[in-house]
Amino acid sequence: MPRFFMAGTNIKGGMAIMTGRDAEHVHVLRLRPGEDMIICDGQGTDYKCRLVKADKEQVEAEVVEVVRCPAEPTVKVTVLCGLPKGDKTDYIIQKSVEAGAYEILFFQSSRCVAKPDKPEKKLERWQRIAEEAAKQSGRGIIPQVGWAGDFTAVLDIAVKKDLGLFMYETGEREALDAVLSANRDMKTAAIITGPEGGFQPFEADLARVCGLHICSMGERILRCETAPVVALTAAMYATGNLS
Amino acid sequence: MPRFFMAGTNIKGGMAIMTGRDAEHVHVLRLRPGEDMIICDGQGTDYKCRLVKADKEQVEAEVVEVVRCPAEPTVKVTVLCGLPKGDKTDYIIQKSVEAGAYEILFFQSSRCVAKPDKPEKKLERWQRIAEEAAKQSGRGIIPQVGWAGDFTAVLDIAVKKDLGLFMYETGEREALDAVLSANRDMKTAAIITGPEGGFQPFEADLARVCGLHICSMGERILRCETAPVVALTAAMYATGNLS
Repeated sequence: MPRFFMAGTNIKGGMAIMTGRDAEHVHVLRLRPGEDMIICDGQGTDYKCRLVKADKEQVEAEVVEVVRCPAEPTVKVTVLCGLPKGDKTDYIIQKSVEAGAYEILFFQSSRCVAKPDKPEKKLERWQRIAEEAAKQSGRGIIPQVGWAGDFTAVLDIAVKKDLGLFMYETGEREALDAVLSANRDMKTAAIITGPEGGFQPFEADLARVCGLHICSMGERILRCETAPVVALTAAMYATGNLS
Repeated sequence: MPRFFMAGTNIKGGMAIMTGRDAEHVHVLRLRPGEDMIICDGQGTDYKCRLVKADKEQVEAEVVEVVRCPAEPTVKVTVLCGLPKGDKTDYIIQKSVEAGAYEILFFQSSRCVAKPDKPEKKLERWQRIAEEAAKQSGRGIIPQVGWAGDFTAVLDIAVKKDLGLFMYETGEREALDAVLSANRDMKTAAIITGPEGGFQPFEADLARVCGLHICSMGERILRCETAPVVALTAAMYATGNLS
């Protein structure tokens, strides 16, 4: 069924009014009166609507049913990634949205090679990638993509979650599966992964001091763009959001 | 530590002799006598070696320790994917190898848009991608990439595994997590995912008749190149290979 995101305020008295780009899109899809579509408020609620009138400027639809978006996970996972080089950011965003991330934030850490040049310009493009992936995968929200800042900002974000996971490739670590299965009822979580060169030992030490779980995902070395998606999938699996 | 794949037969009497491309690579890395490296036999065994002599044509190293490659999963998962368009194959291969696949096979199903033109030529390139990913992620084998053929060949491969999983987006399905947690001790598994347009109902019916588990991964619609990696990660998590 065609799926759109719309600000909740445009739904009033059992009718949904759509304008702008989305109205054009309905027009392009040649949807006809009587056909069904889903308008999501971007807050996890789906409005199943039946089209009443559609022209290029405005679309009117009758709200048939209001349901919680079934694709939305029960846990809000914030994915925090050391800024990688090139278009790996795009990949991380697209796959994390599909896999169920609540938000995706990039940060600068000591081994980051990429420079956060003009992050404002990039943010707009990143957010578009998230929106496309959210539509395509049937999400009930458009996960926010943002710039967390430096490593201390990341720690500050992570300690405020029910569970804070710091993925690290060496030294004393907990097994990711053990940590996750002991926290199946978490409502919020943070997953921190590094850039191409990983983290420096002092960064892991800081994370440990802050009470984050320093985690291993096994002996396979995952690329910086693969690690967040694998860890996120594990979190979804552990919390019953992959069934 | 630098890591190489080598045919097991080149290790004799406690010495490893390396020639050709790998010897050149050792030379390029400027490894010096006394330095350590790992030579993997591609069958899951790591030979920790100390370099004795290295020139461009031949490398000699003393075998210090022989261990089972710790990165190799305890379960052999065959990933079977409906042939997707463009370079999505490359993505599936690289990420599946990182995530722990035993082998990756593509097949033709009724909704495949891509045509398997000159698969022999592609196989060579696909296998190189697998080898690079295996080296980079520290695998103990080079997962084979192949062409399974048509859908009946796929079913035949899957029914011979301890567990056969058929990922499907609609209708009556089992939850992936329930199926996996009931089969934690499996030694072999097959994960079947579709091309861009998914599977036809008759294909799912056939898989069901063959005794495969028709599985749901939740309500999020995963792209054809994302689904195999997510399902594989779930299988690794369930069998304790992500810790």
